[in-house]
Amino acid sequence: MVGINKEKDIDDLPKNQANYTSLTPLGFLERAALVHPNRTSLIHASDSYTWLQTYHRCRRLASALSNRSVTFGSTVAVIAPNIPAMFEAHYGVPMAGAVLNAVNIRLNAQTIAFLLGHSAANVVMVDQEFFPLAEEALKIWADNSKGNFKPPILIVIADKSCDSKSLQYALSKGAMEYEKFLETGDPNFAWKRPQDEWQSIALGYTSGTTASPKGVVLHHRGAYLMALSNPIIWGMGEGAVYLWTLPMFHCNGWCFTWSLAAICGTSICLRQVTAKAVYSAIANLGVTHFCAAPVVLNTIVNAPKEDTILPLPRVVHVMTAGAAPPPSVLAAMSQRGFRVAHTYGLSETYGPSTICVWKPEWDLLPPETQARLNARQGVPYVGLEGLDVVDTQHNKPVPADGTTVGEIVFRGNVVMKGYLKNPKANAEAFANGYFHSGDLAVKHPDGYIEIKDRSKDIIISGGENISSVEVENILYHHPAILEVSVVARPDEQWGESPCAFVTPKSSYAADNPDQQRQLAEDIMKFSKSKMPAYWVPKSVVFGPLPKTATGKIQKHLLRAKAKEMGPLKKSRL
Amino acid sequence: MVGINKEKDIDDLPKNQANYTSLTPLGFLERAALVHPNRTSLIHASDSYTWLQTYHRCRRLASALSNRSVTFGSTVAVIAPNIPAMFEAHYGVPMAGAVLNAVNIRLNAQTIAFLLGHSAANVVMVDQEFFPLAEEALKIWADNSKGNFKPPILIVIADKSCDSKSLQYALSKGAMEYEKFLETGDPNFAWKRPQDEWQSIALGYTSGTTASPKGVVLHHRGAYLMALSNPIIWGMGEGAVYLWTLPMFHCNGWCFTWSLAAICGTSICLRQVTAKAVYSAIANLGVTHFCAAPVVLNTIVNAPKEDTILPLPRVVHVMTAGAAPPPSVLAAMSQRGFRVAHTYGLSETYGPSTICVWKPEWDLLPPETQARLNARQGVPYVGLEGLDVVDTQHNKPVPADGTTVGEIVFRGNVVMKGYLKNPKANAEAFANGYFHSGDLAVKHPDGYIEIKDRSKDIIISGGENISSVEVENILYHHPAILEVSVVARPDEQWGESPCAFVTPKSSYAADNPDQQRQLAEDIMKFSKSKMPAYWVPKSVVFGPLPKTATGKIQKHLLRAKAKEMGPLKKSRL
Repeated sequence: MVGINKEKDIDDLPKNQANYTSLTPLGFLERAALVHPNRTSLIHASDSYTWLQTYHRCRRLASALSNRSVTFGSTVAVIAPNIPAMFEAHYGVPMAGAVLNAVNIRLNAQTIAFLLGHSAANVVMVDQEFFPLAEEALKIWADNSKGNFKPPILIVIADKSCDSKSLQYALSKGAMEYEKFLETGDPNFAWKRPQDEWQSIALGYTSGTTASPKGVVLHHRGAYLMALSNPIIWGMGEGAVYLWTLPMFHCNGWCFTWSLAAICGTSICLRQVTAKAVYSAIANLGVTHFCAAPVVLNTIVNAPKEDTILPLPRVVHVMTAGAAPPPSVLAAMSQRGFRVAHTYGLSETYGPSTICVWKPEWDLLPPETQARLNARQGVPYVGLEGLDVVDTQHNKPVPADGTTVGEIVFRGNVVMKGYLKNPKANAEAFANGYFHSGDLAVKHPDGYIEIKDRSKDIIISGGENISSVEVENILYHHPAILEVSVVARPDEQWGESPCAFVTPKSSYAADNPDQQRQLAEDIMKFSKSKMPAYWVPKSVVFGPLPKTATGKIQKHLLRAKAKEMGPLKKSRL
Repeated sequence: MVGINKEKDIDDLPKNQANYTSLTPLGFLERAALVHPNRTSLIHASDSYTWLQTYHRCRRLASALSNRSVTFGSTVAVIAPNIPAMFEAHYGVPMAGAVLNAVNIRLNAQTIAFLLGHSAANVVMVDQEFFPLAEEALKIWADNSKGNFKPPILIVIADKSCDSKSLQYALSKGAMEYEKFLETGDPNFAWKRPQDEWQSIALGYTSGTTASPKGVVLHHRGAYLMALSNPIIWGMGEGAVYLWTLPMFHCNGWCFTWSLAAICGTSICLRQVTAKAVYSAIANLGVTHFCAAPVVLNTIVNAPKEDTILPLPRVVHVMTAGAAPPPSVLAAMSQRGFRVAHTYGLSETYGPSTICVWKPEWDLLPPETQARLNARQGVPYVGLEGLDVVDTQHNKPVPADGTTVGEIVFRGNVVMKGYLKNPKANAEAFANGYFHSGDLAVKHPDGYIEIKDRSKDIIISGGENISSVEVENILYHHPAILEVSVVARPDEQWGESPCAFVTPKSSYAADNPDQQRQLAEDIMKFSKSKMPAYWVPKSVVFGPLPKTATGKIQKHLLRAKAKEMGPLKKSRL
């Protein structure tokens, strides 16, 4: 500290209890319950809650968990679609001081077993429909633990929309029902802010970048800042009505789980996302905003007329992330009265932390130019302090020429704490004082960034990341496969889907189209039994794989080939 | 740190360069220049700037200051109305690492001399019109320093709307012109974020609560959080057009100076606030939002027809703070298409940090009930973590019964660092882990707070705080005054104005109305020569003062008497 006026002591005033408090999104809930106790916080089918009720329920949850020794350092896994309990867990779990792990319900038991073991889950909350999946995962975890297994507290969440049998089954297996569990908690539980805003609030596993899922740890400070950035970026005012098509297990619903309390908005849950349900919620429940993977936009614009309710009663704001929807879809959305914002980010950056801000001067451009400009990943969110595209070899930013490719790097307060128990991955991810996205992009003269390739070969299908390496690793267990490389193929329905290029073993005949069709079917059947459905290659192509002089498979050539094949035609959702 | 799963290390991931950055509103400017380089940042008379230009100008200012050894720990005082340089100082000064002291231009030279000396100003930037005032203040400061005076760098800000003579005068006295000063700076100056978000960003002197102004020190963290809270609370979206009627020297324009960069909005400066100028800016410059003291609302609704432009071309959002405008004014504003939000706060809480959130169910109530509900101080801002009304004697919250009076206390990240060089005031202000506002209020059953009295006898006149104690201290120098007590009297024009209750010395005759009128005029004349115009008592009443048994003047009785006298009639603004 140097200063020409040190004697002024203008920087010598210390923090005290009155002027320094840890930042946490949990305070938004307390405030929402104070300011709008009777406003609807959440609607799910025939159930609806007010903010005061939600506050009480979350405190009950925190209290019930605390009563069972769940505290600072504990992990609570939730395996559920977008239902009230999943929303409540975003407050109740950290209000007990613990960390929420919202698990992707599309994963298989094997992967879930890995996540639960890796995070040493103390509690597993599971929706009744997914109880058998959780049961299987727990069994695998126990088997893999060789006697060291400490069974987590098991809670099943009943949902009236489901068949009662699955609930009965879960109860017969000794799971406690969620509402019963809440009853053991105190609605006036004295939850505490974290002592340190760096404390962990959530853990989410990312797939797609390596063979082993990595646990992304988020802190209260970042969750607070992202929760405030979302409404500012989106012009989402107090009392907005938000439709949940984006799974809350996707990076905590990109932190909108917390934004909604900050603006005292209303959440509409959808157990199943269909075009009909989306239109109906817009028409009947006053929806003003939703986030959605491009595949959902696809579904919305291609819905049969009887499922739609058009014209829309109001402008509906849509935020989509990842691969930009094709221009035709964007144009169709716009025509129907949806206003689509295109964002980009990763679980490691609390979800989208860049946005392709629409410029008024684009209004006058031809639609194709508009779509091209709006398909870019854009500029930093208001809460993101550093975004750049760097030549990692020379550790310097690329010129803003729209052609020089570099890696997208992030720096700031909405960057994760790190990967759980993975020092090697952390050292790589945080090299040179940046978080490395692994995504390759250019920077345009207007400062907007645009992704050109994914350095780690992620396939984004229906909004889900698929690691080609993981799919390949499984396919290699098929008896007929000598060599395989999996890349993204454009897909009318899902944006992208996995396409496997296979060299069969010489003992397997794949010389004529009939033999190839049969082998392809066999490989797909094999895949279905070994991996989540959305990982299964939808296209299988036979032939030798192009390689570099050193023997590395040239994926970029295969990607080009898959692109040449043209988009996979749509099958009915 | 305790936890049942310490072995998980889920809280052991350290901060690093990539995932932790100090919060500062300065980053908003960098982002605005990147995202909307060509959007208008600021309009002043015939001048207008883009965000890129503003960014360059602020960096020039920071660079020019740095070149002159202004750095961490330095203070830069700015004495100016709402002109571009004042806005730019909010970025340029802290970008040099220094602290901005925006000085109230309505203060007299004596008081300004005190502020400059107390903060040991290294630089004084002064608008050409106020140069003589600054010159006088500097002379007083020098005289009081007894040879220890180190003259600050003196910069005069030219404004084309002013008479050129005052500029010539300032230049002849050796002041450097602001634009010339900017030219000595580098538009690409590599400004740095503060290393610590607790670093001071601004200093503002409060009058009205004690006899000596106190220097409120604000930090980067709080300024950042308040800048984000404002647009969320107000639903102020990207690209809003904001009219400056609120002086930027009032708590940094309640931090809207920084909010505007966060939302890439446009500032409209007004050197003189008149009803005509306000209507004209709304009609011609697209104004969507402004903040204003209640007296400005008064002016707007009472403007002669030829000064208004009605109906408004759009809904205009107005935020007002402090004493609530009378119901008739609120109703008239609403009728004209203004939507008024009522807020409350202090310089010590970064400006308004509570808001009377309007409830949809109030829409159906009778206007008087609406006005009564909306005149309350309300609920916490989204960025304020703790607000309560406490019985300070027993250090516990008062019941939410709408009748028990207690003191309003604040806790959270938008509470000042403390008062500069004033440990005694800090100890009092931060007693028991709260910031004590000194305002007395009740808490209603709906959680809204409402001010009932001001424990420190502040008079709020035209949005300015006046300390009755300070006025009394000066009046006591009048030869005819034996005893005096100053309280607020309702005032049609200014909300409140000072009313002096005087016991004349026996040697002075004030027995009949004629004598009293003459003496009152003499006291007012005396006051005009000794204090800012707005402090001057507008009413003088003669007679003995009511006292307690221990001889303390019973101000509450005088306040009641002043109220009985009825509001002082309006004189033309």
